[in-house]
Amino acid sequence: MKITKLTKGISLKRPLEGGNEEQLQVVRQVLADVRAQGDAAVRAYTEKWDGFTLQELRVSTEEIEQGAKSLDPQLYADLKEAAHNIRFYHEQQKRSGYRVQLANGSWLGQRITPLDAVGLYVPGGTAAYPSSVLMNVIPALVAGVKRIVLTSPAGRDGQLPTGVLAAAHILGITEIYKIGGAQAIAALAYGTESIVPVDKITGPGNIFVALAKREVFGEVAIDMIAGPSEIAILADDTAFADEVAADLLSQAEHDALACAILVTTSERLAEEVAQEVEKQVAALPREKVARASIAHFGAIYIADTMADAVEAINSLAPEHLEIMTEQAEQVAEQIRHAGAIFVGRYSSEPVGDYFAGTNHVLPTNSTARFASGLNVDDFVKKTSMVYYSEQTWANHAPKIARLARMEGLEGHARAVESRGWRKGE
Amino acid sequence: MKITKLTKGISLKRPLEGGNEEQLQVVRQVLADVRAQGDAAVRAYTEKWDGFTLQELRVSTEEIEQGAKSLDPQLYADLKEAAHNIRFYHEQQKRSGYRVQLANGSWLGQRITPLDAVGLYVPGGTAAYPSSVLMNVIPALVAGVKRIVLTSPAGRDGQLPTGVLAAAHILGITEIYKIGGAQAIAALAYGTESIVPVDKITGPGNIFVALAKREVFGEVAIDMIAGPSEIAILADDTAFADEVAADLLSQAEHDALACAILVTTSERLAEEVAQEVEKQVAALPREKVARASIAHFGAIYIADTMADAVEAINSLAPEHLEIMTEQAEQVAEQIRHAGAIFVGRYSSEPVGDYFAGTNHVLPTNSTARFASGLNVDDFVKKTSMVYYSEQTWANHAPKIARLARMEGLEGHARAVESRGWRKGE
Repeated sequence: MKITKLTKGISLKRPLEGGNEEQLQVVRQVLADVRAQGDAAVRAYTEKWDGFTLQELRVSTEEIEQGAKSLDPQLYADLKEAAHNIRFYHEQQKRSGYRVQLANGSWLGQRITPLDAVGLYVPGGTAAYPSSVLMNVIPALVAGVKRIVLTSPAGRDGQLPTGVLAAAHILGITEIYKIGGAQAIAALAYGTESIVPVDKITGPGNIFVALAKREVFGEVAIDMIAGPSEIAILADDTAFADEVAADLLSQAEHDALACAILVTTSERLAEEVAQEVEKQVAALPREKVARASIAHFGAIYIADTMADAVEAINSLAPEHLEIMTEQAEQVAEQIRHAGAIFVGRYSSEPVGDYFAGTNHVLPTNSTARFASGLNVDDFVKKTSMVYYSEQTWANHAPKIARLARMEGLEGHARAVESRGWRKGE
Repeated sequence: MKITKLTKGISLKRPLEGGNEEQLQVVRQVLADVRAQGDAAVRAYTEKWDGFTLQELRVSTEEIEQGAKSLDPQLYADLKEAAHNIRFYHEQQKRSGYRVQLANGSWLGQRITPLDAVGLYVPGGTAAYPSSVLMNVIPALVAGVKRIVLTSPAGRDGQLPTGVLAAAHILGITEIYKIGGAQAIAALAYGTESIVPVDKITGPGNIFVALAKREVFGEVAIDMIAGPSEIAILADDTAFADEVAADLLSQAEHDALACAILVTTSERLAEEVAQEVEKQVAALPREKVARASIAHFGAIYIADTMADAVEAINSLAPEHLEIMTEQAEQVAEQIRHAGAIFVGRYSSEPVGDYFAGTNHVLPTNSTARFASGLNVDDFVKKTSMVYYSEQTWANHAPKIARLARMEGLEGHARAVESRGWRKGE
């Protein structure tokens, strides 16, 4: 890994991976076809891209139960414990609305209600992500969403991975479709003969899924446009190079476009980590992917002071940040922008990917400046409520009418005043 | 207005107003030009579309103070009282994060922090919307956002409306630009020589503004794609036709694309409202706009039962809903989808547009199914925090490593296990 001296005021902000025009045209065609032809288009694209003939779009109850039974019982128990932890963390995010009393019997309120129906995209294909099932479904369950739909591309055998089915089984999810890619997003957004449309689509996916989500945004809600994974590690001389290197590689192995960055105040650590990464990457099953990621998007920065290092991290706004320094918790207080922060040596990032309870669907591409990881708020909506009594109306109608007229909206003024004339009845 | 018998199960859902390909190409060109040429492009487009030569992009302190002084003192006081009410309502939405203790000294947390910088678009041109300044700025202020930028198209005299300046003055906003349209959205998203980019852009605008917001989404956060205004009124035989008609027209006057719908269980009311609308619209200054809206998007539906009427409203998911029925509050409980609900005869919708305290930036085009009005949550982000102690790590590392290996991510497993070997030190 390349070691660079950190220049003060440098921004590590990562440019947005937006896809190209050709990919966008493909996605638009898929969306239009599914909108017009429904299931037939979904079947055709599945045959074309996923390489199998989609008979039943929906996974049967037997398949789900068979999947759960086929999974190693130890793994099933691990998943179940992870689900429990994730639920516990997200339960804290539940909120109720409020009502405030005004004078003369009037009140204002905010009502918080779960969405009716959400669709969760679970990436698949070469890899299986049971953990993504847990991370997407549980916040929706905690929010109280009644209809939760999963969709995930099946393998060439037409089956979903055992782990994915087992995770769905643990959570009691029964509406699952064997559809991936842009056609899955289209089916969830517009509906088909077999799929009733949903109100919101969440979950990460490849560039086609990301582009499709962006296109249907507005028609339905979406969580965010997920980009390649990122990790930043902020470390001082107390950190161990082999641990830092292993954690950098844990994200680098995801994707050749993934990003792994170390910012450290220790020259010794910088050099040792560079060597360790070289050594460890050679022994990884996903060596090729990790090497590509490290070569293009890996970097080690040496900062003069911890304050400079913190500022560099804030400019990057990484998806995942590990802090391996003395007084790591105090350092964490100075971080303004990160999707998730892992404090201290034993909080290795995969702890949060799988098990601790926090969500692993997190903002990438420096969007942690303004975006949050998936959470219960993503599955509710708020409705404001106004009750004005006759007296409150009488007190304020003249002001409201004046404000409306200032904006040239006479109809607004007259609406408020229309209640007036009956006062003499 | 056309009166239709409501058929059971009919959906009143409104199709999304997406803009056309030509408009999109214009917007893309503007975005690209501002990105490449900064202020120069902003000046050129302002000259072209707003019809004046933009000297200083930024409004001076003197202009703001002059604006505040020029406004009728009564209106200034009305705006100030409205600001107070809006602040009071939104203060209830402030939240802090949480921390939960786990066994063995470990903990998980969620940190909630304000965004660094937001840009608020205030529509302008023919009309002035001081109320939009209040509605966009106050939730950001309550959230604790430090840098709040306003942008609004100036008139042909190169000045912003007095009311808009006065509203900014009341709120203490000093960074204001005289820029409108897609070029304003581009400047806020990408920055120019004179404008530092922001993290989120909110506020309604015309179709060019809406398309531009959609295009920059991801680069920055946006609130929502605002469509034309909508009102639905749910009324029974106790409602007064002239009041219902006046409220329908209050939204119809906004925009020829605005939508005004009455759903009622009373045939008598339906017929009287149709007549009243005809009578009142003829006397409106904005008669032409209101007539076009009523002709194309106005409708009166007669429902057999209140339950049918409620279901129709839920299928519409209107931006604004007024309930003028007996026991209006109980009826409101059955509404699942609406941006804002106005309960009872005296809660005329403009009450919420200007004064009561709730926000008037609300989800349109049936998106109240999944979206919320602008609120304090829109101006904060959440960061998850994980601290695992050595003991917690030791207890769970084997499970985490198993889950990672199930997903084929050996590097993840090794990262977690990397802490292990030193146990023997």
